[in-house]
Amino acid sequence: MSQYKHVALIGLGLLASSISLAMRRAGMTARITGTARSKATRDTALEIGLVDAVFESAAEAVQGADLVILCVPVGAMETLAKEIAPHLAESCTITDVGSVKRAVADAIGPHMPRGVHFIPGHPMAGTEKSGPESGFAALFDNRWCLITPLPDSDHDAVERLSAFWTALGSNVELMEIDHHDLVAAVISHTPHLIAYTMVGVADGMNKVAKTEVVNYSAAGFRDFTRIAASDPTMWRDVFLNNKDATLEVLGRFTEELLALQRAIRIGDGDFMFDYFTRTRDIRRSIIDAGQDTDAADFGRIKPEK
Amino acid sequence: MSQYKHVALIGLGLLASSISLAMRRAGMTARITGTARSKATRDTALEIGLVDAVFESAAEAVQGADLVILCVPVGAMETLAKEIAPHLAESCTITDVGSVKRAVADAIGPHMPRGVHFIPGHPMAGTEKSGPESGFAALFDNRWCLITPLPDSDHDAVERLSAFWTALGSNVELMEIDHHDLVAAVISHTPHLIAYTMVGVADGMNKVAKTEVVNYSAAGFRDFTRIAASDPTMWRDVFLNNKDATLEVLGRFTEELLALQRAIRIGDGDFMFDYFTRTRDIRRSIIDAGQDTDAADFGRIKPEK
Repeated sequence: MSQYKHVALIGLGLLASSISLAMRRAGMTARITGTARSKATRDTALEIGLVDAVFESAAEAVQGADLVILCVPVGAMETLAKEIAPHLAESCTITDVGSVKRAVADAIGPHMPRGVHFIPGHPMAGTEKSGPESGFAALFDNRWCLITPLPDSDHDAVERLSAFWTALGSNVELMEIDHHDLVAAVISHTPHLIAYTMVGVADGMNKVAKTEVVNYSAAGFRDFTRIAASDPTMWRDVFLNNKDATLEVLGRFTEELLALQRAIRIGDGDFMFDYFTRTRDIRRSIIDAGQDTDAADFGRIKPEK
Repeated sequence: MSQYKHVALIGLGLLASSISLAMRRAGMTARITGTARSKATRDTALEIGLVDAVFESAAEAVQGADLVILCVPVGAMETLAKEIAPHLAESCTITDVGSVKRAVADAIGPHMPRGVHFIPGHPMAGTEKSGPESGFAALFDNRWCLITPLPDSDHDAVERLSAFWTALGSNVELMEIDHHDLVAAVISHTPHLIAYTMVGVADGMNKVAKTEVVNYSAAGFRDFTRIAASDPTMWRDVFLNNKDATLEVLGRFTEELLALQRAIRIGDGDFMFDYFTRTRDIRRSIIDAGQDTDAADFGRIKPEK
């Protein structure tokens, strides 16, 4: 299957910069063009060699590209789609890295010209860092990239996009689009909302000083602060655009939490012990699947004192 | 201040083994005796040199010790206190590492003979691992050890115990006992309960396969599984014994979560954006305080594929 000759990266943050680095690591020689809203980001991307050329507008950046990857917050997709539509090369493939797929498909799809292959995607990888300097070539290694073809997606174009992500290090899986949104709500969106909430609670307890929260955070709390340090715009857009699935999972979460809260109130130790034993098994499965390290404390690097 | 000459470790898991290793690293030459309920644990502890001598009963292990450290789940403290009380050396110090302090003080205090210095303590450090082989000398480095003296605690004995924890690498702080329990509920107990709940929810979603939860866990979920892999007995006892503070913090948590849930339902992006921006700051403070690494993804060690 032929490789892409010209890849346009729209948005130059963590995902786009990691894609560029992983492409080069894989030996791909495609021309890479890019754009970002901020001049500082564009300048940095060019300076550190993420792109061969940088443009002020997405309309310019996509010209001549046979693969366009939208790496912007979900809420920015529709405006962007309208802007680039007249400038897309005939029969190019356009995909995205958004964490929500139904809303993105609805936002982009209607604006795509005939002949263009629009195939939504979601690499399930990331860190809490943002910006063009946060990327690294290994980000996608052994992580799953979910591709959610539309009913009329061209089979060959899907295969070619899958091969691209595989070359970047990903495991690729095709998934029905609404199922994707439910899966993402369970393993990504709700955990992020819960983490934001826990950090907000600790920050807002007026009977506990902020220095206490900070100093003693190694007792569990600090784990939540990592994902609660993720990009606020990106996550606002995720929740605005995956409302139904997130609310469904949140409903389940509240139900389970209240069951545990009741067990605490009435002193039902057996209920808690069984619950805490069951949850232990799933970590073992994640480690066995190569999705996390077995090293204690994530093998955390000790900060300098 | 003179060092202890004979330290008895009751329970030989993560905390006790780390104490032993940190004592040796600090050059302490005290005799270390120990006991654990399971023969396998006792044998391992002796074999890997955590203790100079191991005993089948706590009553034997504490004999002649000038420092006794109870490293067992909170729910086991009272029975243990009754058992060892007649065997404690005159004017020895007895402390513990339990995550709850009021319940432990009430469970142990009444059984202590006159002349024995009982001083509750809580090193705010740990990992998700358990057992005698999970300890390491650096566990307490730059972590805080909260000591919660009782109204009649002897000043010199408290100073001596503080110096011991400082030598192990800890920062030591004295704290009022009920305030400790609230602080611990915020930065440790509630985060653990939330993590257990999130893992339970994902595990119980019948519309999402377990393989999906496991494979795509790098998108946020896997962070929760680490602390939800902690020892079930220990955590059951924590919640049974810090009921009021945990329920207070859980009430706050539910309130905040419902506010965010409402924002999702009505599409209030500004509320979410502001919330997610505020929580970002606290991570910066934790990193600046040397309580977590600034490396992306905790500087996670990549698992072998």
